[in-house]
Amino acid sequence: MSKNNKKRILTGDRPTGKLHLGHYVGSLQNRVKLQNEYDTFLIIADVQALTTNFDHPEKLSEDVRQVARDYLAAGIDPEKTTIFVQSLVPEIAELTVLYSMIVTVNQLRHNPTIKSEAEQYGYQEMSYGFLGYPVSQAADITFCQANLVPVGEDQIPHIEQTRKIVRKFNNMYGEVFPEPEALISDFPRLIGLDGKNKMSKSLNNAIYLSDSKEKVSQKIMKAKTDPARIHKDDPGNPEVCTVFHYQKAFNTKNHTQIAEKCRAGTIGCVACKKKMIKKLNLFLEPMRERRKKYLENPELIDQILNKGTAKARKEAAKTMKKVREVMKIDYFNN
Amino acid sequence: MSKNNKKRILTGDRPTGKLHLGHYVGSLQNRVKLQNEYDTFLIIADVQALTTNFDHPEKLSEDVRQVARDYLAAGIDPEKTTIFVQSLVPEIAELTVLYSMIVTVNQLRHNPTIKSEAEQYGYQEMSYGFLGYPVSQAADITFCQANLVPVGEDQIPHIEQTRKIVRKFNNMYGEVFPEPEALISDFPRLIGLDGKNKMSKSLNNAIYLSDSKEKVSQKIMKAKTDPARIHKDDPGNPEVCTVFHYQKAFNTKNHTQIAEKCRAGTIGCVACKKKMIKKLNLFLEPMRERRKKYLENPELIDQILNKGTAKARKEAAKTMKKVREVMKIDYFNN
Repeated sequence: MSKNNKKRILTGDRPTGKLHLGHYVGSLQNRVKLQNEYDTFLIIADVQALTTNFDHPEKLSEDVRQVARDYLAAGIDPEKTTIFVQSLVPEIAELTVLYSMIVTVNQLRHNPTIKSEAEQYGYQEMSYGFLGYPVSQAADITFCQANLVPVGEDQIPHIEQTRKIVRKFNNMYGEVFPEPEALISDFPRLIGLDGKNKMSKSLNNAIYLSDSKEKVSQKIMKAKTDPARIHKDDPGNPEVCTVFHYQKAFNTKNHTQIAEKCRAGTIGCVACKKKMIKKLNLFLEPMRERRKKYLENPELIDQILNKGTAKARKEAAKTMKKVREVMKIDYFNN
Repeated sequence: MSKNNKKRILTGDRPTGKLHLGHYVGSLQNRVKLQNEYDTFLIIADVQALTTNFDHPEKLSEDVRQVARDYLAAGIDPEKTTIFVQSLVPEIAELTVLYSMIVTVNQLRHNPTIKSEAEQYGYQEMSYGFLGYPVSQAADITFCQANLVPVGEDQIPHIEQTRKIVRKFNNMYGEVFPEPEALISDFPRLIGLDGKNKMSKSLNNAIYLSDSKEKVSQKIMKAKTDPARIHKDDPGNPEVCTVFHYQKAFNTKNHTQIAEKCRAGTIGCVACKKKMIKKLNLFLEPMRERRKKYLENPELIDQILNKGTAKARKEAAKTMKKVREVMKIDYFNN
């Protein structure tokens, strides 16, 4: 719990590129709301990004700033939310190493998310760090004494792992950490422009928060609609239309009406797409405004990240002091 | 390589209790010599001790000081050797986490020493940290840019693992670390007082460097000799006599003569043991003198450890700076 009696949230992303509408719907939107109610710590998990990109760390420098710009553009307020860089908080590595003593290899191997992700990335030979990333996540969550972690369903096993570590640590050494709870988000995953898979950078089916007006227009115009609908006055099935998915997500007031018109064949796909483009650009416009400020003054991003990281380190130092005390390894009180 | 153009050595121990004659013969004696020729970093590996003692960290505070006293008593000179505490160098944890991305789980599982140690400690469920301790050792060795690591045969797989990590890191990111070499010690293992197993704290068959005159005397008087020898003028077989093992190790000038007398039945076991006790106490006397100084002035130990740790952290900071540079994760040059 933070000084102002607000519960603390830890959330964040691996910096692996530009954020898209799927990120917005799935987590960013929620974070922008939550920052008013909770003391939010937002981690840019660059070390964890190395679990899958250890051969290309040179991309991180731009990716870290990119994700920070996306956060700020999307409405994350650095006065309310502490945005920080994982690799600049060595206490997270210290906690990772300590926790690694109280987690068994079998617990990690049987984690369903680790299993399926290892298959997804095609690892014949999983790295030691990849196997242990739930341990590193436990360190991310606990170093700042977070109470809540907003997550999707697939991340629940990791939060359970963190809770296990916290219980074991507190029982064995002394009460240092609150037992963090998952704040399950019920936002659906956003479908990609291909109409088949969830929106994802690697599948090249995404609309980015940083896309220009023209780019958004081009992408929507090419988006898959109901393939059975040949002429604009044929009755359509909005349930199988990618654009209608976006209408539901970003045109919340009018999507029912649009669905009716589609089913009646009184609105064509081009007209529907044009409405969507207008709506999306209206939605993205304030983000473009904010982004412009940060692109024109790149030092602002670094200032925000430095300030956030300094605040995170302060919390980290407090936590490590307690950890050393209860473990009785504060040999010289230093 | 250090400033004074001496090659650098990294060596050390897990602080798990008092050091005994087996440690002296197996490593300490060698370190006392090496410190004149090499720039020696001596790690008290308290975090690594947690791999097997995570449920009793409260013992570490005394054990860390105990092992430091044993070092100093045995002749380690803090002006020549940098003695430091692992948990107080967070950069070691940072390197451990980074290296964990470039080591596979299978490499660790197939490490023969990990396999046999896991069996020895009876782990049904190996901890993640135990599986990864060769990764943590690689961080110990490399954070201070060590060139040489004095080890016994059983540690060779770990040095090989470190060399693999160093090669992979240097090739992938840029030349940061020298490839450390094992400095194989050919000292035999010292047999314990039971005459069966190697000297070891857990087997309760050890003579400690901190044992008093009387204690040494009692222990040697009870030590197993040739069981076939009933009377003091029976011919004995020194090869199966525990005390003769110690004569070979600590009475290097006279042990051939004693063996001859034993075989001829012209020296009895009691007389032989008395010679041994005298010799051992002569050997331990200067250690007792030095130990007395540190026991009477316990703050000296803390001063030495603090100074050594500060020096280690300085080296660690230099190394992490280089690591961040070549990995291009020195985002804000901090």
